[in-house]
Amino acid sequence: MDERAFHFSILVRQGHARRGKILTPHGLIDTPAFMPVGTAATVKCLTPRQVVECGAQILLANTYHLMLRPGSPTVAALGGLHRFMGWDRPILTDSGGYQVFSLAELRRIDDDGVTFRSHVDGATMRLDPESSIRIQNELGADIIMAFDECPPLPAPREDLERAVRRTVTWAARCVACHHHSRQALYGIVQGGLDVALRRSCLRSLVELDFPGYAVGGLSVGEAPEEMARLLAEFVPEMPEERPRYLMGVGTPADLVRAVGSGIDQFDCVLPTRNGRKGYAFTSTGVLRLQNSRFKRDPGPLDPGCACECCRGFSRAYLRHLFMSRELLGGTLVSIHNLSYYQALMKRMRTAIETGQFDRWSSEFLSRPVRDDPEEP
Amino acid sequence: MDERAFHFSILVRQGHARRGKILTPHGLIDTPAFMPVGTAATVKCLTPRQVVECGAQILLANTYHLMLRPGSPTVAALGGLHRFMGWDRPILTDSGGYQVFSLAELRRIDDDGVTFRSHVDGATMRLDPESSIRIQNELGADIIMAFDECPPLPAPREDLERAVRRTVTWAARCVACHHHSRQALYGIVQGGLDVALRRSCLRSLVELDFPGYAVGGLSVGEAPEEMARLLAEFVPEMPEERPRYLMGVGTPADLVRAVGSGIDQFDCVLPTRNGRKGYAFTSTGVLRLQNSRFKRDPGPLDPGCACECCRGFSRAYLRHLFMSRELLGGTLVSIHNLSYYQALMKRMRTAIETGQFDRWSSEFLSRPVRDDPEEP
Repeated sequence: MDERAFHFSILVRQGHARRGKILTPHGLIDTPAFMPVGTAATVKCLTPRQVVECGAQILLANTYHLMLRPGSPTVAALGGLHRFMGWDRPILTDSGGYQVFSLAELRRIDDDGVTFRSHVDGATMRLDPESSIRIQNELGADIIMAFDECPPLPAPREDLERAVRRTVTWAARCVACHHHSRQALYGIVQGGLDVALRRSCLRSLVELDFPGYAVGGLSVGEAPEEMARLLAEFVPEMPEERPRYLMGVGTPADLVRAVGSGIDQFDCVLPTRNGRKGYAFTSTGVLRLQNSRFKRDPGPLDPGCACECCRGFSRAYLRHLFMSRELLGGTLVSIHNLSYYQALMKRMRTAIETGQFDRWSSEFLSRPVRDDPEEP
Repeated sequence: MDERAFHFSILVRQGHARRGKILTPHGLIDTPAFMPVGTAATVKCLTPRQVVECGAQILLANTYHLMLRPGSPTVAALGGLHRFMGWDRPILTDSGGYQVFSLAELRRIDDDGVTFRSHVDGATMRLDPESSIRIQNELGADIIMAFDECPPLPAPREDLERAVRRTVTWAARCVACHHHSRQALYGIVQGGLDVALRRSCLRSLVELDFPGYAVGGLSVGEAPEEMARLLAEFVPEMPEERPRYLMGVGTPADLVRAVGSGIDQFDCVLPTRNGRKGYAFTSTGVLRLQNSRFKRDPGPLDPGCACECCRGFSRAYLRHLFMSRELLGGTLVSIHNLSYYQALMKRMRTAIETGQFDRWSSEFLSRPVRDDPEEP
């Protein structure tokens, strides 16, 4: 790892919460940071400029989807993922592991890797630590992820132990075959809700000296309180001087609790996926725009928000777009939801800087509003 | 009609072609002008800002769609169409007639108006000159259209004659009930491909002294050459000092020929509808982005174009978006196609200003490229 290409520094701590900066070849990331999901090299419905205007400094793309279509050699031939998708800020790619386990057909896991059938054209494909890293090298993200096994919860103890064993072995193979000094390779901790198992996994990973560590295998079926309890106990034990990334999480409340436990990075499809369905996160709770009470509501989605959607359009207009199945509705509410998430991260960074995080987060978490990820 | 609210002036003429300006309560329109179609109060997939960046100075919205959903009283309660859709430039609404004839179910026409069943909720509805004007008054566009009968071509002579008769009677009823001095009401000439019938229709309309005149009932089944022939003969006979609007037309070549005949305004769904399907208008002909030859094409859609799509993205990336059914593809190619249409209009305006329109249009029309509206 080239220290000039990737560097993490903590500026301020409050309790377990940290306010930091990650330097990457494509620029700085203020942490705690939220990464919008751009699965197939596009944050669905939004131009890169719109994603930037929401405040995002880094986004995530999915190796599994891109290896199937258009294929990493094609992305590489076109100059890499940044140029391909017109995004010149940092990118993180996942390893493909999670999607293989959750999306692929006829998936067969062995100790060496995973054989599966492409959901695009039915072709039989193989993903293992070496091919995941090779593909991520070709895509060229600033941060790439080790190939891990991510079992859904609840899982029998022996499944979790086997997943940890494989994740650790595969992590070592990822380190061994990753030679791009300008891409930071993060290790992923598995172990379900079992703190002892998480500790054991982390100990093995730390021997490999990753520049960053992710908590994987959460938000996969367990209750939000169970996740929060595990994070509160486990995250403070993660290497202090390395960024900590909680994968695939979560609701605004999940984020606030996890920052309080010391997490620095997040990604989640909620703001965009729910946005496309007319489900808006706002400072006064969640709104379902299809609700008839918005038929003549002239107010903005969120009076406290300055995004393009809230500046220009009424709830009544947004409702009209969803009732008429006009795609602009999904675009505008995705813009709002991403702006809401980015504003929330900024609020947390400021609260940590000013020593008010504990008080602010208590207040936030006691709001009498729903923001659970219930699908509309 | 308030002269300060609506004023048309011709700056330069070359042959039958005219370079002019229309003043409206929401600003100036340079003519010849192309109006993107925002059927349900949204140019599909685009934010108003993106539509402005394409160069549009005016857009069209469909009375038929808006009367069904959300209803003109709702739009009026929310401050009118401009505020409702976040578009502060001029808007033109059509009368609803064309859509009733082409989209509505169980449609029954009589001399007084049309009864039909809503395609949204099946309700029985009625549209006639008075209700069309009332709805357009409530929507509040800068330019509104008389309620006409538009038969598909080819049509028996007696159908065309009856349509002209009704169109003229209905036009007088529209004038009689339209009292908003800040909305310019255009008359619509019908008569199919029969110049004598068009003349007779126009003569009756001119007695009503409309501030603008539209040619309706074209691009409804006839060959492009038939339309061009009718326009070349008929348009120069239309009132010289009033804007002339060719409804629902057309391909780039249609536009160039029609400007040569003296048309000032156009609207058409082609750039956006075809854009959403991956069909791009470019200076070197049409491209279908799904074509496998673009798989690794690093070039922009159109090297001669400076739009957001051509500045930021390769043909290979756009193809990837369409192959992956990512909606951003439709957004980006709609942006390009609208920018292409607006640049074409600007090129024509400049050519007229500099006295080069005849030479330029001959060259343009002899290009060895296809730009017919074939659906991808």
